[in-house]
Amino acid sequence: MPDAKLQVIPLGGLGEFGMNCTALRYGDDILVIDAGMMFPEDEMFGVDIVAPDFKYLLANREHVRAVVLTHGHEDHIGGLPFLLSKLPLPVYGTPFTLSLVERRLDEHEMTEEADFHEVSAGDIVEIGPFKVEFIHVTHSIPSAVALAITTPLGVIIHTGDFKVDPTPPDRIPFDLHKFAEYGKKGVLLLLSDSTNSDRPGFSESELSVIPRFEELLHRADGRVVVSCFSSSVHRVQILLNVAAEFRRKVAFLGRSVNQVLEIAHGHGLLEIPDGILLRPQDIMTTEPSRVLVVASGTQGEPMSALARVAVDSHKHLKLGGDDMVVMSARIIPGNEKGIFRMINHISRRGAQTVYGSMSPPVHVSGHGSAEELRLILNLVRPRYFVPIHGEHRQLSQHASLASHLSDSSLERTFILETGDCLEVDERGAYRAEPVPVGRICIDSGTVDEVVEELVIRDRRNLSEDGFVIPIIAIDHLSGHSDGLPEVVSRGFISGEDGASIMKEARQVVANTLSGSTAEEKGDLGVIQEKIRVDLRRFLTKKTSRRPLVLPVILEF
Amino acid sequence: MPDAKLQVIPLGGLGEFGMNCTALRYGDDILVIDAGMMFPEDEMFGVDIVAPDFKYLLANREHVRAVVLTHGHEDHIGGLPFLLSKLPLPVYGTPFTLSLVERRLDEHEMTEEADFHEVSAGDIVEIGPFKVEFIHVTHSIPSAVALAITTPLGVIIHTGDFKVDPTPPDRIPFDLHKFAEYGKKGVLLLLSDSTNSDRPGFSESELSVIPRFEELLHRADGRVVVSCFSSSVHRVQILLNVAAEFRRKVAFLGRSVNQVLEIAHGHGLLEIPDGILLRPQDIMTTEPSRVLVVASGTQGEPMSALARVAVDSHKHLKLGGDDMVVMSARIIPGNEKGIFRMINHISRRGAQTVYGSMSPPVHVSGHGSAEELRLILNLVRPRYFVPIHGEHRQLSQHASLASHLSDSSLERTFILETGDCLEVDERGAYRAEPVPVGRICIDSGTVDEVVEELVIRDRRNLSEDGFVIPIIAIDHLSGHSDGLPEVVSRGFISGEDGASIMKEARQVVANTLSGSTAEEKGDLGVIQEKIRVDLRRFLTKKTSRRPLVLPVILEF
Repeated sequence: MPDAKLQVIPLGGLGEFGMNCTALRYGDDILVIDAGMMFPEDEMFGVDIVAPDFKYLLANREHVRAVVLTHGHEDHIGGLPFLLSKLPLPVYGTPFTLSLVERRLDEHEMTEEADFHEVSAGDIVEIGPFKVEFIHVTHSIPSAVALAITTPLGVIIHTGDFKVDPTPPDRIPFDLHKFAEYGKKGVLLLLSDSTNSDRPGFSESELSVIPRFEELLHRADGRVVVSCFSSSVHRVQILLNVAAEFRRKVAFLGRSVNQVLEIAHGHGLLEIPDGILLRPQDIMTTEPSRVLVVASGTQGEPMSALARVAVDSHKHLKLGGDDMVVMSARIIPGNEKGIFRMINHISRRGAQTVYGSMSPPVHVSGHGSAEELRLILNLVRPRYFVPIHGEHRQLSQHASLASHLSDSSLERTFILETGDCLEVDERGAYRAEPVPVGRICIDSGTVDEVVEELVIRDRRNLSEDGFVIPIIAIDHLSGHSDGLPEVVSRGFISGEDGASIMKEARQVVANTLSGSTAEEKGDLGVIQEKIRVDLRRFLTKKTSRRPLVLPVILEF
Repeated sequence: MPDAKLQVIPLGGLGEFGMNCTALRYGDDILVIDAGMMFPEDEMFGVDIVAPDFKYLLANREHVRAVVLTHGHEDHIGGLPFLLSKLPLPVYGTPFTLSLVERRLDEHEMTEEADFHEVSAGDIVEIGPFKVEFIHVTHSIPSAVALAITTPLGVIIHTGDFKVDPTPPDRIPFDLHKFAEYGKKGVLLLLSDSTNSDRPGFSESELSVIPRFEELLHRADGRVVVSCFSSSVHRVQILLNVAAEFRRKVAFLGRSVNQVLEIAHGHGLLEIPDGILLRPQDIMTTEPSRVLVVASGTQGEPMSALARVAVDSHKHLKLGGDDMVVMSARIIPGNEKGIFRMINHISRRGAQTVYGSMSPPVHVSGHGSAEELRLILNLVRPRYFVPIHGEHRQLSQHASLASHLSDSSLERTFILETGDCLEVDERGAYRAEPVPVGRICIDSGTVDEVVEELVIRDRRNLSEDGFVIPIIAIDHLSGHSDGLPEVVSRGFISGEDGASIMKEARQVVANTLSGSTAEEKGDLGVIQEKIRVDLRRFLTKKTSRRPLVLPVILEF
């Protein structure tokens, strides 16, 4: 007989894309599922990484028992260094997932303190009041698992990220039977991946890219360069196999792709045909029609291998007119312009570019489409359903995919966003008080460099119309200020017009000063505000722009 | 016998998306084809509109005879106010196109000076040495034309924007016969639209959206809100017809959509079924299942009707749980995040959202895909070919679509980018010296407000790490500076850490000063640079950030 309530608290990834993290709480025990990061929105100027701020977990630090990971993508593990640096915890995951975490912790010199617990699909682990079973699912990264978490109030199934691939490249099938088994016994709550809920039908199998790559390699006279996510181990396996079939050697460009493939190979997840590897420094001395290059940089990241190849500044690869560059990855929304700019540069090198949707496809998604999501809903037939992993439109579409179940098992679907809290007790599930959530914005790859909201807001203002700073020196004895004040400005206006307006601006400030009483000039706050208002009015009238105006008074 | 050379000079739109403008020059006569604008890239902080700077035309102002317009989209006419304000010219176009230009000139109070010449498809106009025939083409806006320009050296065909729609909604067929006729007689040069050259097959007819809208209106219980481009007159006609079929009234929200539809109706290009119009103020008092709303704001523009509806701040429309919002337009690259943010807000209102690719489609492109482009190439079978309207990857794909013609008529394809110059004389066509080109960046909708490159670069720097300005007052007699210097900063760092670092920064500047000789302090440039270098090193070491550091020295 349960004596406490169960709480499901999304700390990231619901109503937003990325930084997936969910807390399960039963009484005084908290279990964390995943701790991801996200790439910042355009408006977060100068910020490199965004992670949940985990303040709920830190405020309840004595109750947090462990982190359980579903798979090794950055939006599921990338926030771990920031969480573990503040709150050391046991971390459960498959060996490949934990190796990817280790790589991230290494970057922050945090590996030694890590408390890793390796698990395999089929294992059951008890963590406080939670009994967690790991279930194999198919996804674009190997060793991905869903979680069946038995609690005193019933079973919760968390799918992690998945698609239902009928023919996975590693031949390890999606464990439909386990989902069916739990569904038959009765599931209290399903938390299921909504990423592709707005796509009709089924996602194609990872294997369906093979005919396209065969066609491209059959057609290509020169080098073929393929860009894919470094974590797409299955995709790389397919490329190795097709390259072998067409007697091409394979070179890997990019630090990240080399690291991940080494890890995958170490775990027996990547079979490398004998003698197929080509060192990057040997690319240009090998007959082009015998070369396939796998390069990182699918999102047009400026320092990536492909971005450098595109502008002809990579030391190991120069593209020629017979070469072909294949973009085998999705475009993350917001990156379109940068990616297309890179493709244009590649096209200027004379190389043929292959990208976009086509049939057979050059890329398939790792997330299930509408009919796969319905399949899981029908197998699990939960009492309650919470769509996870997606922006509101995707959560809402996923909710509507479950509507046919309301005739039978499904009592209610809840659309939660990050920070919302779902409570379950003997009577059922209902919304409870939200918990405090937030984001930390990190300027570079360290765990310390947090950029505050205020700073980001200033940067946004500065990026629009720049700044104008009038500097006034006032004699602290007489209250006099001699001559015209200095005015410093950047990002506002330039050229001859600019010079003439800035000259007038100095006069405007001088007029404000001479029109102010000694009393006003004695009060720094008052005179600063008078100058700010007058100067801003003048500048807006002259230019229709609204720079940041920040008067500085120096007393001497 | 021609005695001069012919030059083809793209001034915008080749190797970039938007602001299409091409100059044709024969001897001392220049004809301008289109004068468009583009929306700025993300990196052009605070800029609203970008247009070609037209410096080549202004430098040759006495030779420029006229502007000929192919159709009324902003990327073909939006730069006209800026061109005409500097260089008044006769403007040729179809009546609907000219009315759209008039609307833009009105905004700048420039209509009175306009020298408009209305033409219809089939008309031939002589402008200097150029004989221009206007040829009807199908596109997503009515009254679009291609140009067949007979010059002393041969015929140039400029397609404008087009698709080959077999069943156009206005039943005016694409004039294939005219293209065939010119092709039979022999065409010197084809300039053809490359926008969709990277899409295989044929673009679907505009009519193919009808079954989708019928399905949606059949299924919808509440209001249906459709967002499409305000210039998509055909799409609006289809919506009016389908609404009439399902006995819904139609309301239009958005200034731009109302203006354009009024103009289209005035030209007889839009048939409005009797009694179908609903005033915006009557939307909420009409039975929801009898209402269809056409709203502007397909790109998530913050002040658009749909953006305001999404955040529940539109005075005439509040969405409810039975309502449906349909995005019937393409996403312009770079706008994805803003559009999805708006759709998420609509989803939070409880409304169902319909967007993305599906079959039958909810949107079709107005540009021809690969097979339509091949059809035009085969009909025209030019001696030379220049792909226009597109980024490099699209121009390059279009060039490869013409490769089969090199066995017969096609001597050469030139991939030109904006500013390149193609010269043709008796011997043939070849690349000539590029001409000066550039962009003007306009902060708001006036013709004067030009933002310079330097200012935009400063804004970019400011947006990344903000600024730090140390201000040092030096006694011009003694060279002394008393106390700690002031340091002003924004967008850099805040909070307690920030305060402590800024305090240290003041000490760093003071140390630099005290460590400098009187001679150094006497030379403003030297002391400024010393302070800049020392302070920047300190700040980067402390924070890994690189703010703009701008020392100001005041002498008193």
